[in-house]
Amino acid sequence: MSTGESPFEWTETGLRVRYAETDQMGIVYYANFLVWFEIGRTDFCRQHGFAYREMEQQDGLYIIVAEARCRYKAPARYDDEILVRTCLRGARKRVLVFGYEVYRQTDGQMLAEGETVHVITDRDGRPRALPDKYREMFLAGVKARSGLGG
Amino acid sequence: MSTGESPFEWTETGLRVRYAETDQMGIVYYANFLVWFEIGRTDFCRQHGFAYREMEQQDGLYIIVAEARCRYKAPARYDDEILVRTCLRGARKRVLVFGYEVYRQTDGQMLAEGETVHVITDRDGRPRALPDKYREMFLAGVKARSGLGG
Amino acid sequence: MSTGESPFEWTETGLRVRYAETDQMGIVYYANFLVWFEIGRTDFCRQHGFAYREMEQQDGLYIIVAEARCRYKAPARYDDEILVRTCLRGARKRVLVFGYEVYRQTDGQMLAEGETVHVITDRDGRPRALPDKYREMFLAGVKARSGLGG
Amino acid sequence: MSTGESPFEWTETGLRVRYAETDQMGIVYYANFLVWFEIGRTDFCRQHGFAYREMEQQDGLYIIVAEARCRYKAPARYDDEILVRTCLRGARKRVLVFGYEVYRQTDGQMLAEGETVHVITDRDGRPRALPDKYREMFLAGVKARSGLGG
Repeated sequence: MSTGESPFEWTETGLRVRYAETDQMGIVYYANFLVWFEIGRTDFCRQHGFAYREMEQQDGLYIIVAEARCRYKAPARYDDEILVRTCLRGARKRVLVFGYEVYRQTDGQMLAEGETVHVITDRDGRPRALPDKYREMFLAGVKARSGLGG
Repeated sequence: MSTGESPFEWTETGLRVRYAETDQMGIVYYANFLVWFEIGRTDFCRQHGFAYREMEQQDGLYIIVAEARCRYKAPARYDDEILVRTCLRGARKRVLVFGYEVYRQTDGQMLAEGETVHVITDRDGRPRALPDKYREMFLAGVKARSGLGG
Repeated sequence: MSTGESPFEWTETGLRVRYAETDQMGIVYYANFLVWFEIGRTDFCRQHGFAYREMEQQDGLYIIVAEARCRYKAPARYDDEILVRTCLRGARKRVLVFGYEVYRQTDGQMLAEGETVHVITDRDGRPRALPDKYREMFLAGVKARSGLGG
Repeated sequence: MSTGESPFEWTETGLRVRYAETDQMGIVYYANFLVWFEIGRTDFCRQHGFAYREMEQQDGLYIIVAEARCRYKAPARYDDEILVRTCLRGARKRVLVFGYEVYRQTDGQMLAEGETVHVITDRDGRPRALPDKYREMFLAGVKARSGLGG
């Protein structure tokens, strides 16, 4: 799953499909892929030294979702080991764009790919600029961490 | 579904099973009954003139769940019309106990029954007494509302 | 919320925001809008005399989600009364496209709009054509039903 | 977190709180603890060499939840690292009882403890006895696995 030609670094997050995430079709319910995107996003931030929890608590800033899109390629099933790959596709003053790819670990089958667009707001929902310290963290290379990579 | 002998008034709430609530067994995932209990609880409060949202916003008080219990009698399926019946089993100074019964509307089959125990806290999680105005609302009879009752 | 100029009929579905659907930002978690889309879709089918549950059981056919997209305009909050409007934007041999609009009932504020693309498959995930009987139901006008409309 | 005096082996499962699991109180929504119990249960089975997925597929048997109970001690928050400990409290012919403890990893604080009671059924919901091969797996000691234990 190399992305040698991509200008963007990807972070990788593993998870295992929960029984609660399946529906009566026997596959993962489609909305749960957006939950997985968010897990990938959280992990992307953490691997860049960016604690989203602290940005909420210390700076009173929130990363609001403005748009989400997912293309479903193949179903995910209970107990499947899943790999979520996340990258930052763009980081302008007030807008962040994340890209995602979801794979089944056992055979490398791509299950879905998607994108989310975000804006920064304060506690009252007013648009704000992303503080420089966070912006730099985002754009910096992923910190070395054993077992993870891009 | 009469409860003639009960000293407690029940409120009733209808809902329809969502596809998202099913699992690969083809039935509603067990944790979702606790979501339905919460919907019954919210409706119980509303029918007693008690806006839980306002208690959170105006008084900074929260009703924390201390215990939950559910006995599952029969499965619920996608698109089933469900009736959640809710009553207040006890309201002491700091503790509220709600009881629930869940039925399938079409044939009156009981699907589950359960109980939740709650304590009142402030924003920081410290136990607080339920203000008298709310306590009185809870213990007062259900306000007349068309199509609802016990 | 008239859509007089649209060639498509919309069906309308009401729901109320559940506590379980909120997140720590105090608003509805973004993936739940896809759950609401599915509720609108189910209701669209029901109002066209199309019981999705029967298609699964009797014909062994499934409507798989191939793509989902949502644009978020304003946040939804606990206990808000929500209106989901659903229309069929396209119905080719193997592909269905649904459109959605989500409004807050109290002030008519649009909260989100989106689209889902679906393909018909059999139990084993192989693409199949939508049987004519269902296709006709979809394309027929909404059956008269008290309290509902487009 | 030693349980030296317990006659039961515990298995341990780590997870991290998802944003989707929080509610507007800023803590994990109470029904999600039942989802975590199920993750612990799945892992308990896996660590005993018991693939629940195979039992469903090969033997057409299901482990139905008959009762669930949870006592909440302290709230879980976004991004917390959680430890779910699971044990089998009883395994009679048709009934299984699992026990759970949920801890915050950073400080060892117990967040919740609970229990679920299960019955074995076939695809049509009729009670069945747990096949001996599975029963033996359950009652056997946990297979050695690096990084896990009881």
